Amino acid sequence: TVEAILKDLHPADQVKVLSQLGDEERDRCLDLYEAPEIGPLISESFGRLREHLLDHFPPDVLAEVVQELDSDEAADLLQDLEDHAADRVLAGLSFEDRAEVEPLLSYPEDTAGGRMQREVFVVPAKARTRKVLAELRKVGRDLEELQDIYLVDNRGVLAGVISIFQLLRLELHTPVVEGANMDPLFVTPEEDQELVASLFRKHRLHSLPVVDDTGRILGQITADDILGVMEEEATEDLYRLANINEASDLTEPIIRAFRRRASWLTTNAVAGILSATIVSFFSGSISALPALAALMPIVANLGGMGGVQTATIIVRAMALGHMEGASPVRVTTRQATVGLLIGLFFCLIGAAVAYSTLGSPGLALVFGVSLALILLLSGILGSVIPITLKRLGFDPALVSGGLLTTLTDSIGFLLFLGLASWLLF
Amino acid sequence: TVEAILKDLHPADQVKVLSQLGDEERDRCLDLYEAPEIGPLISESFGRLREHLLDHFPPDVLAEVVQELDSDEAADLLQDLEDHAADRVLAGLSFEDRAEVEPLLSYPEDTAGGRMQREVFVVPAKARTRKVLAELRKVGRDLEELQDIYLVDNRGVLAGVISIFQLLRLELHTPVVEGANMDPLFVTPEEDQELVASLFRKHRLHSLPVVDDTGRILGQITADDILGVMEEEATEDLYRLANINEASDLTEPIIRAFRRRASWLTTNAVAGILSATIVSFFSGSISALPALAALMPIVANLGGMGGVQTATIIVRAMALGHMEGASPVRVTTRQATVGLLIGLFFCLIGAAVAYSTLGSPGLALVFGVSLALILLLSGILGSVIPITLKRLGFDPALVSGGLLTTLTDSIGFLLFLGLASWLLF
Ligand SMILES: [Mg+2]
Ligand SMILES: [Mg+2]
Ligand SMILES: [Mg+2]
Ligand SMILES: [Mg+2]
Ligand SMILES: [Mg+2]
Ligand SMILES: [Mg+2]
Ligand SMILES: [Mg+2]
Ligand SMILES: [Mg+2]
Ligand SMILES: [Mg+2]
Ligand SMILES: [Mg+2]
Ligand SMILES: [Mg+2]
Ligand SMILES: [Mg+2]
Ligand SMILES: [Mg+2]
Repeated sequence: TVEAILKDLHPADQVKVLSQLGDEERDRCLDLYEAPEIGPLISESFGRLREHLLDHFPPDVLAEVVQELDSDEAADLLQDLEDHAADRVLAGLSFEDRAEVEPLLSYPEDTAGGRMQREVFVVPAKARTRKVLAELRKVGRDLEELQDIYLVDNRGVLAGVISIFQLLRLELHTPVVEGANMDPLFVTPEEDQELVASLFRKHRLHSLPVVDDTGRILGQITADDILGVMEEEATEDLYRLANINEASDLTEPIIRAFRRRASWLTTNAVAGILSATIVSFFSGSISALPALAALMPIVANLGGMGGVQTATIIVRAMALGHMEGASPVRVTTRQATVGLLIGLFFCLIGAAVAYSTLGSPGLALVFGVSLALILLLSGILGSVIPITLKRLGFDPALVSGGLLTTLTDSIGFLLFLGLASWLLF
Repeated sequence: TVEAILKDLHPADQVKVLSQLGDEERDRCLDLYEAPEIGPLISESFGRLREHLLDHFPPDVLAEVVQELDSDEAADLLQDLEDHAADRVLAGLSFEDRAEVEPLLSYPEDTAGGRMQREVFVVPAKARTRKVLAELRKVGRDLEELQDIYLVDNRGVLAGVISIFQLLRLELHTPVVEGANMDPLFVTPEEDQELVASLFRKHRLHSLPVVDDTGRILGQITADDILGVMEEEATEDLYRLANINEASDLTEPIIRAFRRRASWLTTNAVAGILSATIVSFFSGSISALPALAALMPIVANLGGMGGVQTATIIVRAMALGHMEGASPVRVTTRQATVGLLIGLFFCLIGAAVAYSTLGSPGLALVFGVSLALILLLSGILGSVIPITLKRLGFDPALVSGGLLTTLTDSIGFLLFLGLASWLLF
């Protein structure tokens, strides 16, 4: 039966199977779960199934589950519960477990605090290797894995870090400081998770301590959780560029998907009224020369795509830190130059094709010049918008395909129809 | 001076500074670099600066550099050289170093083989903890960091894995197998790096052994390199959805950027001829009722954006493995339903706005119905195209905004102008 083999699967695969089941069958499977298996299942779950799981298990079971999880996962679980449910779960915890997880609940999930676990292995900075190894063996029984040991002074202030491998290479009588990095990286809990991930990437970290304003260790972020952070941040950028709400996924209820996506498209539709108004100014020209209506979407489409290309390159470069130190003016100038070259290329091709099919040199000229200008503009807008957003403190990925194509539509129509009306009539 | 502080920076920051310098100033800085600093600099470099660096340093210097790098980074460097230059560098290596790096050169960079290093720490599966610890201390002097120890049988076939932390918890006289995972994950060198990254994410790995067909260890992939893989794969999807060549970035020479981007846009432009042809079929209708030209871009734009939203959600779900086990038909049906709902919403709004501004109930009806149909279609196309691409063995991210908006443009014009000509004339 499904139920029997289900629990042998990796929790992430259990999530896949359970997501495909109907409500009844799923709940029948869930009835076979015990607390130690529920924790990993909830931790791996997302979207709609996660909501179901948090709803399905009663507070006393969730309290048991929370007790077995690392504090970072426990906090994630509690933060996804309704307030009253979270309070009931917290009430079911031992004093110790509650003290461990409660301080984490105040941090937003996409910050260092939201990613940190309170479990850390700290030793006095003046300890000798023999002592630390003995301590490790003792505490180690309760831990699944451990990479870095933090050294602290007698007030609990972070003083250094040493990996287990580095520790192992020291002689037993040597003070651990001799193998340690006494100028360790750290972050405060407010730090954005994207910056945290870039520190892991740049410095090839196994863990990163999180400290308060006085330097005291609050917890640590571990490398295994950073892959998830990178996934989330990449999804965020991809979604924002495509005008999608970042909570959307394949599993969201249809009505919610409708509401979320329609609301983003509404902005586009409203902006569409602008482009329609622009086109309607030129009704007379279009009526007299309907070929204008046939060519104008090409101007808009190429302008929009060119803008999306440019903006995507800029947004990605920013996310990877490649824009740091680069001059915004120089970057924009380069993208404008590329846009102009592409524009001149399509100006020649477009004018030639238009002339050979429509036979009107004037129309071909207007079409070509409009292509050149809109592609130049797409290079400029595609760089200026994300750079400006970032300057103003917004996410540069909020420059979306929707915004850009709407802008290039309106400007493209204005350019092309305006030039045509001026030169051809 | 710049030169003096430059080398104190992290190599990734040196890359940022050097990228901003003019050719002369950059080369003057580079003249101050010695082999041990050149390796990390080249490893962190990308795009145009990387080409400059590989060009700047002579083969004998690069041979020295390669000798100091881990074999994975050494192979990356050699693979980015021209063949004759790589041969000269290889000729400058010691026999040992050459034997270490040469087998890596045949693997494509985005495979497990392209990401693996040959340096591994292996011990006989029957070894005792004391022996392994002693060995670690001895070999450890040459290593910077180490996470996992592989156990092999007497033919070198992978038998198990144990982390250093797990090793440390064993009694000295215990055989290491007792603390080891004797059913370890592994990959063969052909495996796609995206799948490798998803294994690291799912199983929270520190390292992953790469084995040949007989199970013998060829090398390992380490977690610190996986963050870079995830960045690359996210860039690839983001770029493909936006019609950009994956090698493009801010630093590419303008002429190359022009060629790459123009070639993608050319497909769009050619498809634009299709949409222009469709529009020109309806010249008569447009000439008589130019409001058609004003409204048709709204149909096309909303259809395109809706398609991009759907495709982005599907492509992302596939990249994150969320589509595994999901029924393609069910997924498509859901997206079509969402599309239809959004379509009906904009049908009502659009028809109302069109009627109140243009006063023609017939035109308002045609506009509304076209919006409903194109948004329904966008949900279908946005799911069917990436699902089909994947079925056929292509990257689903090759469904691009360019392809989708071109399709929805043509279909949108055909729908709207066709309905209008049929019903209103
Ligand atoms: Mg606990
Ligand atoms: Mg977020
Ligand atoms: Mg959290
Ligand atoms: Mg964790
Ligand atoms: Mg973010
Ligand atoms: Mg971001
Ligand atoms: Mg070497
Ligand atoms: Mg590399
Ligand atoms: Mg690739
Ligand atoms: Mg490689
Ligand atoms: Mg490496
Ligand atoms: Mg790939
Ligand atoms: Mg991919």
